[in-house]
Amino acid sequence: MLGVKIAGTGWYLPERRVSNAFFEDRYHIPARWIERATGVRERRYVDGETTVQMGVAAARRALDAADLRVEDLDAIVGASTGPQQAIPCTSALLQRELAAPEGQSACFDVNATCLSFLFALQNVAHLVAAGIYQRVLIFSSEISSRALNPAERESAVLLGDAAAAVVVTKSEPLEASAYWHAHFATYSSGADLTQLVGGGTLHHPNDPSTTPEMNLFHMQGAAVFKQASQLLPPFVDTFFSQLPWERQHIEAVIPHQASRHGLEILTSRLGFTESQVVWNLAERGNTIAASIPLTLAEAVYCGRIKRGDRLLLIGSGAGLTLGAIALTY
Amino acid sequence: MLGVKIAGTGWYLPERRVSNAFFEDRYHIPARWIERATGVRERRYVDGETTVQMGVAAARRALDAADLRVEDLDAIVGASTGPQQAIPCTSALLQRELAAPEGQSACFDVNATCLSFLFALQNVAHLVAAGIYQRVLIFSSEISSRALNPAERESAVLLGDAAAAVVVTKSEPLEASAYWHAHFATYSSGADLTQLVGGGTLHHPNDPSTTPEMNLFHMQGAAVFKQASQLLPPFVDTFFSQLPWERQHIEAVIPHQASRHGLEILTSRLGFTESQVVWNLAERGNTIAASIPLTLAEAVYCGRIKRGDRLLLIGSGAGLTLGAIALTY
Repeated sequence: MLGVKIAGTGWYLPERRVSNAFFEDRYHIPARWIERATGVRERRYVDGETTVQMGVAAARRALDAADLRVEDLDAIVGASTGPQQAIPCTSALLQRELAAPEGQSACFDVNATCLSFLFALQNVAHLVAAGIYQRVLIFSSEISSRALNPAERESAVLLGDAAAAVVVTKSEPLEASAYWHAHFATYSSGADLTQLVGGGTLHHPNDPSTTPEMNLFHMQGAAVFKQASQLLPPFVDTFFSQLPWERQHIEAVIPHQASRHGLEILTSRLGFTESQVVWNLAERGNTIAASIPLTLAEAVYCGRIKRGDRLLLIGSGAGLTLGAIALTY
Repeated sequence: MLGVKIAGTGWYLPERRVSNAFFEDRYHIPARWIERATGVRERRYVDGETTVQMGVAAARRALDAADLRVEDLDAIVGASTGPQQAIPCTSALLQRELAAPEGQSACFDVNATCLSFLFALQNVAHLVAAGIYQRVLIFSSEISSRALNPAERESAVLLGDAAAAVVVTKSEPLEASAYWHAHFATYSSGADLTQLVGGGTLHHPNDPSTTPEMNLFHMQGAAVFKQASQLLPPFVDTFFSQLPWERQHIEAVIPHQASRHGLEILTSRLGFTESQVVWNLAERGNTIAASIPLTLAEAVYCGRIKRGDRLLLIGSGAGLTLGAIALTY
């Protein structure tokens, strides 16, 4: 257990709301099928906002919530799948746009697709506990609307744009807030199930053999669901065997909003009740790495999560990787 | 001080050697100017190898050197600027290609351009010290030859391809090996001095307004040199004020091989002697994130670095970020 807390949370959602009727009109995907198959009624798409601008908006709210100023940050950690540009890392661009004093913070990015935020939180929790950094901003900002694949209806209708951020500090003496445990495991037999094969050295954008299709998101939804639903129950059993809590002690399960079926597994097969699991899939869609911190930030804002609550942040991501973190908010 | 060590190092260099005569023949850049301006006589370019294949070759050597097997790894951390593909993260692809047993390791990537390896090492050192992971592979694998900008001769001739890897474990009792200190600082007024503006959400490869030029590397070499050379002396003074060593106690300074001028600063203005600073720039070029671990791995292999030696790993990267780690090998 580490005496480390999430001191503040914030988020940003683009103004532009995209309903299922948009997909029915444009791609002839029935709106009712979308809601039934994915659980998504609406998602947001950027309308000019950049990855960094969204991250800054979320960061300002997280700093306000933590009652801290940009001058207080000594590390800024990006935790998104898609960078704003290949070089430099998105966190350095965010330092500038946030007007955080240069030279006072260390900036680096962590990427594990949908689990980027959880890995960043694990790393940051240990760095803060060790006294290396005092006040760290972690932000996830995703613009998946740039890489949607209309030919793959299930993923195209699922994804949404959003940003979310948290500030991590040490807990005060006598505060209940603490970081308890994390566990991650990658099953790379599933590496091809969720892919975007462009955007790197294998299919460079300037390579004449790189096709536009390679630069779009691909997910074999049913296969991902099958692999994740087989692996998650023993993963969660192991996780709780390493934690001095039982499932019923968790006040809020904050899942990656992968899909309706993914969230239903969490509730039924993993031994949680419906009232424990927080959903925002219907209005936000799957916002990739931003999904877990966005769900957390909105739940805190709405009073669904209060100081002292025991939280389980959990999800699966491309890799295929499973991850979970238990903390007292 | 953490009881953590680099248990093994390894590297991979593509077979294809590219001499300065290549640039003279192809781009009419005088070979003698290249060596004088950048200090590079030769660099390697891939000839079909992928980012992951190079990383695997380096990882196997690092595991051999550490006398460990792939089954022993419980985390695999990618620390490169360029991923192999946008999704999933490169470390998950490496788990598969390395045939590391799935489910037994957690895979995530860290990116801070040229300083990716140093940030990864800081994070991993604290996770290993805390007992979260026992045996961690960190690999940096860079194919910069995909994004060279022939119109920008100074960077085009400077960069090379390579991979390097280390295995991090706890030190044994009575071993001198230890991780002492790290410090990083980002100065984002320099964010535009080293850029690759494509490859992310700002200029998506499929966006009709994205030009091939946007997908190439850009560096304002003189401006980077000016900013880094002003910031490094006070940065290094601060670093040593936090460390129970003086400059003369360092057996080997392992710098990011940024450029001849960058390395000369390290030697003259930062108070080190020529015999302390390890160079491989002339034969390897600047291999981005692979540069520091490659220089380390080759120096260990050649006997230049021995167990118990005090090392300073140091460099600057896009951001602009300065970073340094002190450790006893």
